[in-house]
Amino acid sequence: MSEDTTAALPVAVDAMGGDDAPEAIVAGAVAAVKKGFRVVLVGDEGRIRPFLPAGTDIELVHTDDAVGMHESPVVVRRRNDASVRRCLQLVKEGRACAAMSCGNSGALVVAAVLDIGMSEGVERPVIASVLPRADGGRLVVLDAGANVDTRGEQLARFALLGAAYARTLGIEDPRVGLLSNGEEAGKGNEQVRVARPLVEALPLRFVGNVEPSGAFSGACDVLVCDGFVGNVMIKAVEAAAETVMHLLKEEIRRHPAAILGAWLLSRGLRRLRDRVAWDAYGGGVLLGIREVVVVGHGRATPEAVCAAIRLAGEASRRGPVVRVEQPSRL
Amino acid sequence: MSEDTTAALPVAVDAMGGDDAPEAIVAGAVAAVKKGFRVVLVGDEGRIRPFLPAGTDIELVHTDDAVGMHESPVVVRRRNDASVRRCLQLVKEGRACAAMSCGNSGALVVAAVLDIGMSEGVERPVIASVLPRADGGRLVVLDAGANVDTRGEQLARFALLGAAYARTLGIEDPRVGLLSNGEEAGKGNEQVRVARPLVEALPLRFVGNVEPSGAFSGACDVLVCDGFVGNVMIKAVEAAAETVMHLLKEEIRRHPAAILGAWLLSRGLRRLRDRVAWDAYGGGVLLGIREVVVVGHGRATPEAVCAAIRLAGEASRRGPVVRVEQPSRL
Repeated sequence: MSEDTTAALPVAVDAMGGDDAPEAIVAGAVAAVKKGFRVVLVGDEGRIRPFLPAGTDIELVHTDDAVGMHESPVVVRRRNDASVRRCLQLVKEGRACAAMSCGNSGALVVAAVLDIGMSEGVERPVIASVLPRADGGRLVVLDAGANVDTRGEQLARFALLGAAYARTLGIEDPRVGLLSNGEEAGKGNEQVRVARPLVEALPLRFVGNVEPSGAFSGACDVLVCDGFVGNVMIKAVEAAAETVMHLLKEEIRRHPAAILGAWLLSRGLRRLRDRVAWDAYGGGVLLGIREVVVVGHGRATPEAVCAAIRLAGEASRRGPVVRVEQPSRL
Repeated sequence: MSEDTTAALPVAVDAMGGDDAPEAIVAGAVAAVKKGFRVVLVGDEGRIRPFLPAGTDIELVHTDDAVGMHESPVVVRRRNDASVRRCLQLVKEGRACAAMSCGNSGALVVAAVLDIGMSEGVERPVIASVLPRADGGRLVVLDAGANVDTRGEQLARFALLGAAYARTLGIEDPRVGLLSNGEEAGKGNEQVRVARPLVEALPLRFVGNVEPSGAFSGACDVLVCDGFVGNVMIKAVEAAAETVMHLLKEEIRRHPAAILGAWLLSRGLRRLRDRVAWDAYGGGVLLGIREVVVVGHGRATPEAVCAAIRLAGEASRRGPVVRVEQPSRL
C-alpha cells in the first residue's frame, strides 16, 4: 500500500467510548472532518445520527455492542462486535489508517493485541503521550497508563520502544531518562533502581534519573516510567495547569484595570490556553502494536476528541513502530 | 511548658543542608527573622558568619560536621555532631520549638526517629505537604517522599496520620482520598488496591480513589499515596505551574499592547505568582515524630527557606501529632 493511499484512509473512531459518548465523540469527529481529516464513526447508528449535522462527510459503521467504562477489559475478548473491536478490525482490513477510542482503555489494549497484534520484539503495549516542554521541545512520556506494577525489566523495554517512537517524531538521537524522585543513582523506588543499570546497558542515549522539573525543562526527550506513576503524573500536570489558568482568571476579574489589561493581552492568553491545555494533546499512542492505535483522553470533550483524531491521522502518516531491537538479556 | 513559652522559642535551622547552603539558608533565615520569627542557625560558624548581616538577631550554634546530600541516610546514626542532629537535639532539650533542614531528607528522618522518637501508634514517619487547591482550600498530600515501595497496610496508616494532621490545621472532619489513576474500586496499582478496603474500614471520612484533577479541585482534604508517587506528583505540579508562568511571560513579551496589558494586570500577576509558587509552601512536615520537624524544599532558595521556617513556627504553635489511634488489624 503506497503512502498516499494510507493517508487517504479514514481514522476509525469508537463513537461509543468516553464520558459523554456518543454526543461529544460525534462533535469532535465533525470538527476533525472540518479540519480536513477523514473519519469513520463506529457505533450505534440510531444514537449517533441525531448528533450528526446533515451533509457531514462521515462514514458510519453500525454495531449494537459497546464495552462500558466500568467493565473488565477482558470481556472484550468474546465481544467481536463491540465498537472498539470493529474499529480495530477496520484497520486490520485496510479500511482505516488508524483506530481511536476514548472508552475503556484496558479493553482497547486487549482488543489491539487480539485484532492487530504486537510489533516484533515487544512484550506488551505501552501508551506514549507527548507533552509540551517549557523550552519549546516535546516530551514523550511512557507508560502513560497501560501497565501498572511494572518490573524494572519492563521499564527498560519501554525505554527502547519510547526511543523508537521519538525517532518517528523526528527526534534523531533521543535522550532517554528514567522518571524518579531524585537524580542520584540510588534514588527511586524498586522499579527504578532495578531499571537503571538495565537501561544504562542499552544502545540508547541514557541521561539517568530525571525529576519532573528536569523533564519539563528539557533534560530528556523520552521519560520512562510505570503506567500508574505516569498516568498520575500526567493528570497532575493537567490539573496544575488548569488550576493556574483558573487562578489567572480570578486575578483578572478582581479589578477593572486588570480586565482592560487582559483585553490587551487577549491574543496572548488565547495562545497560552492552547499551549497549556495538555488534554488537547489528544491522549496517547498505543506503542508496540503493528498499526496506529490512539487512546483518547477519558474526559472526551469535543476538542480532545478532535485532537485525538488529528494525533491518529498524523501518527499513521509517520507509520507505527513495527519492530524493536531487543537485546537478548531483557 | 506553656504555649506562650513555646511560641517564643526559636526554630532550629540546619544551615549546612540544601543546594546553596549555607548562603541561601542564611539569607532565608534572615528574611524569616525580619518577618518576626525567631531562628537559631546550626552549622559551621566560620562559613555562616560571612552571610550574616551585622546586628541580625540570630543565635548561632556551631558544629563542624554536616551530612552531605549524597551520603547514605544511615551515616547520621554515628554522627552525633552533624548539624541536622544538633538541630533535633535543641528541640529535644527544649531550646527550640521545631527543627528545619533542607538537606539530606533521609538523614533528617533517621535523625528525627533517633533523637526525638516516634509518636504513639506510628510505625514510620511520613512527610505531609500542604498544597493550594483551585477551590481555595488546602490539600494535605502524604507521603510526599519519606517512604518508597510502601505496602497497602502502610498507606492505610498514612491515612490515619494525615487525618490527624488535617485536624490540627483546623479541618474538622477531613475527607480522605487514595491517589489513583482512576476512581473505580478496581483501579490503582497493587498498593492502592490493597489499601482501599483497609482505609474503607477505618473510622475516617473516606471518599475513595481520587485522581489528581479531583484532588486539586476539592474532592478531598487529605490525599494518601506512596512517597515515590507523591514526590513525583508534587514535583510535576510545581514544574507544570512554572511552565505555565514561563509561557505566560513569553506571550506577554510578544507584543507592545500585551506589555501594557501585563502592566495593568501586574498586581494580579504578582498575586498569581505567589499563589502558584508551590515550592514557596515550604516543603513538608515530618509526621509521626513527637516534635515538629520540617523537611525543607531541596531547591533551597531564600524564599523557600523562609517559607519553611514559617511553616515550622506555625506548626509548632499548633503542636505535633503525638498519638494516632491505631486499629489493631493494621
